Amino acid sequence: MSTDLARPDLAGAQADYDALVAQGMKLDLTRGKPSAAQLDLSSAILGLPGERYKADDGTDTRNYQGLQGLKELREIFAPSLQVPVDQLIAFGNSSLELMHDTLVHALLSPLPGAERRWVDEERVVFLAPTPGYDRHFAVCDRLGIELLAVPMTPDGPDMDVVERLVAEDPSIKGIWCVPKYANPDGVVYSDETTRRLAAMPTAAPDFRIMWDNAYAVHHLTEDAIEVADVLALADAAGNADRPFVFGSTSKITLAGAGVAFLGASPANVKWWLALTGKRTIGPDKVNHLRHALFFGDAAGVAAHMARHRELIAPKFAVLEKILTENFADTPGVSWSSPKGGYFVTLTVPEGTATEIVRLAREAGIALTPAGATHPGGEDPQDAIIRLAPTFPPLEEVEKAMTGVAVCVKLALAQQA
Amino acid sequence: MSTDLARPDLAGAQADYDALVAQGMKLDLTRGKPSAAQLDLSSAILGLPGERYKADDGTDTRNYQGLQGLKELREIFAPSLQVPVDQLIAFGNSSLELMHDTLVHALLSPLPGAERRWVDEERVVFLAPTPGYDRHFAVCDRLGIELLAVPMTPDGPDMDVVERLVAEDPSIKGIWCVPKYANPDGVVYSDETTRRLAAMPTAAPDFRIMWDNAYAVHHLTEDAIEVADVLALADAAGNADRPFVFGSTSKITLAGAGVAFLGASPANVKWWLALTGKRTIGPDKVNHLRHALFFGDAAGVAAHMARHRELIAPKFAVLEKILTENFADTPGVSWSSPKGGYFVTLTVPEGTATEIVRLAREAGIALTPAGATHPGGEDPQDAIIRLAPTFPPLEEVEKAMTGVAVCVKLALAQQA
Repeated sequence: MSTDLARPDLAGAQADYDALVAQGMKLDLTRGKPSAAQLDLSSAILGLPGERYKADDGTDTRNYQGLQGLKELREIFAPSLQVPVDQLIAFGNSSLELMHDTLVHALLSPLPGAERRWVDEERVVFLAPTPGYDRHFAVCDRLGIELLAVPMTPDGPDMDVVERLVAEDPSIKGIWCVPKYANPDGVVYSDETTRRLAAMPTAAPDFRIMWDNAYAVHHLTEDAIEVADVLALADAAGNADRPFVFGSTSKITLAGAGVAFLGASPANVKWWLALTGKRTIGPDKVNHLRHALFFGDAAGVAAHMARHRELIAPKFAVLEKILTENFADTPGVSWSSPKGGYFVTLTVPEGTATEIVRLAREAGIALTPAGATHPGGEDPQDAIIRLAPTFPPLEEVEKAMTGVAVCVKLALAQQA
Repeated sequence: MSTDLARPDLAGAQADYDALVAQGMKLDLTRGKPSAAQLDLSSAILGLPGERYKADDGTDTRNYQGLQGLKELREIFAPSLQVPVDQLIAFGNSSLELMHDTLVHALLSPLPGAERRWVDEERVVFLAPTPGYDRHFAVCDRLGIELLAVPMTPDGPDMDVVERLVAEDPSIKGIWCVPKYANPDGVVYSDETTRRLAAMPTAAPDFRIMWDNAYAVHHLTEDAIEVADVLALADAAGNADRPFVFGSTSKITLAGAGVAFLGASPANVKWWLALTGKRTIGPDKVNHLRHALFFGDAAGVAAHMARHRELIAPKFAVLEKILTENFADTPGVSWSSPKGGYFVTLTVPEGTATEIVRLAREAGIALTPAGATHPGGEDPQDAIIRLAPTFPPLEEVEKAMTGVAVCVKLALAQQA
């Protein structure tokens, strides 16, 4: 027996881990995907619109045109996205592509208020509240937009840092925000954070907030939290063109076949539609109609989301239970207890996250790579692991999380 | 009575026109849109996929992923688009957006074979066989890509001109092609034209053919014309990465809710998917499944297109009849008699096209603006009018075209 294994906690942890590996699991906690049972909640949508194809205003949804998207669907989602109906665009099946394309438009055509196209700037930098969403960061990487990490607090990005940076540096053109139940840490932006984001002076005249309200109605508790209205606050502060608001039904109806939304000031909407009108004749309005018929109204969305909650809240509860049982008294181990959204952030002692993910992988449990929550895929503390419990069935979540706890304990024992 | 009106033909033409105006028509021959009766052919698709949501390979089409699109749908369209299944991508509802986005990718990331991103080139020029499709030209205008008109012949672009230009000038990065039943003149590229396009030496190492096979299966006669296989010819000539092939079901199923396709060499496909993978998690696979179930196989597409033909061939026939009756012996007036596609090109004596469109508009008949078929919206001869007969019911097409004939006669009499 080696010296290391002679330490009782390491020997025990290793034995537990070996037993875990011996189980030959094949489980996955990597991505924020809805489960089959969640998708089944929207089964009816697969047969819609059926006989009907006319919109309320008589539009034949089957034909070309209608660049802004079907009005009755925009009316249903305007309240939860906090965007006036006329300033809301309903588009394709992906909000990520709306974000990407908005940045492409800004690279190739001056934004309202801009002095030039972003491709003609020496540098374009976006602030990345960290930990954050890896796909946001990847869009910037792909488009040659630099990322500058800013710390998250329990109230959203550290606004003292953000305000100082944007006031000084005109190359900072934007910030990524997931204001509600943030990916990955579940943080909800305080009203004060939102107010400061909307009102802060920026050196760039064309600074934009990418307000990805991905979990607007994705509550895990009775406490249906609302964030402040960023469009209204920006308008009141004389910065009407600052926010672009995004949302989608990907985690409401069908993840691959939902509808994405973009909301902004009238000037931004006009700019976006003019450029997008060169790209396409219009979005899939039949899918818009399908969704409008399925929900009926905003209350229909809320009722539908309550059924999602019934399916996924127990999965978050089992994570909480296993983490509490195993690590309530472990120094350096903590986790988020989100009131909505799709993720739990597990914080482990510095330098152990990569090892934990490796141990889990070798035991057949796929976790999001450590660092994915950070720009460039590099977490300098190597301490953050993102857990996504929605996709597997409850019993698999429990098994996988029990396994993760074993991996965490082994990594901690190795480090001790 | 004025001297002009004293000329018998002018007086008669003016009287006929006054009578036309008095009818207070409101008819539209502007855009290549399918009619409601054509859309009704695909009514069944509105209730699909119904209970089913799994693809042949077990993929849950409702969830995320599947960037290349559903294989069973790609298999159905691979033959008519002349693209190997593995090199075919099924995507969103618009081929125009695939073309736009491909150029955006080329602007922001080097194409296979390119020395640099196109935004880093001093100029990027595309050849525009003219007359051509206004939305192709608008994409270039929007992206800062210059257009250089090249003449069309009955066999496609004038290849002597094209070959000379692309051999000399490295800033010429591409050419727009609608190889079959071209918009607007119905021309079908000869095999020799396609071979020369695929094989010609180009000064630019990253020259691309934008092969918009929009009317691949849109035959108006028994003669189901096939063009040469541009991907195979380019590969054989050592220029595998030259063509990007596009197509869609917009004028097969639902104009606003169909599926668009992109085909290219393995290297181009890999490049395109890698960049697009940063933009979206994947296209709407439920809509892919809907289409695959609706058609069943490639023969299903052909059978479906025969029903379209029954609806629209009579509309083209009535245009032909009215034009022949009125202008068979009129010098300077000629028209295309396309064997497929969506358009008829009417050629009128130099300097009269704008006036004819104006006269028609004032008589309540909307025609595509003269010049729309030319880069920059400027037809130096002012002689080309694009007619689109598919959308209105047959009796309206007949009325509208009878009216257009009156307008042509008045413009000719005025010019005489």
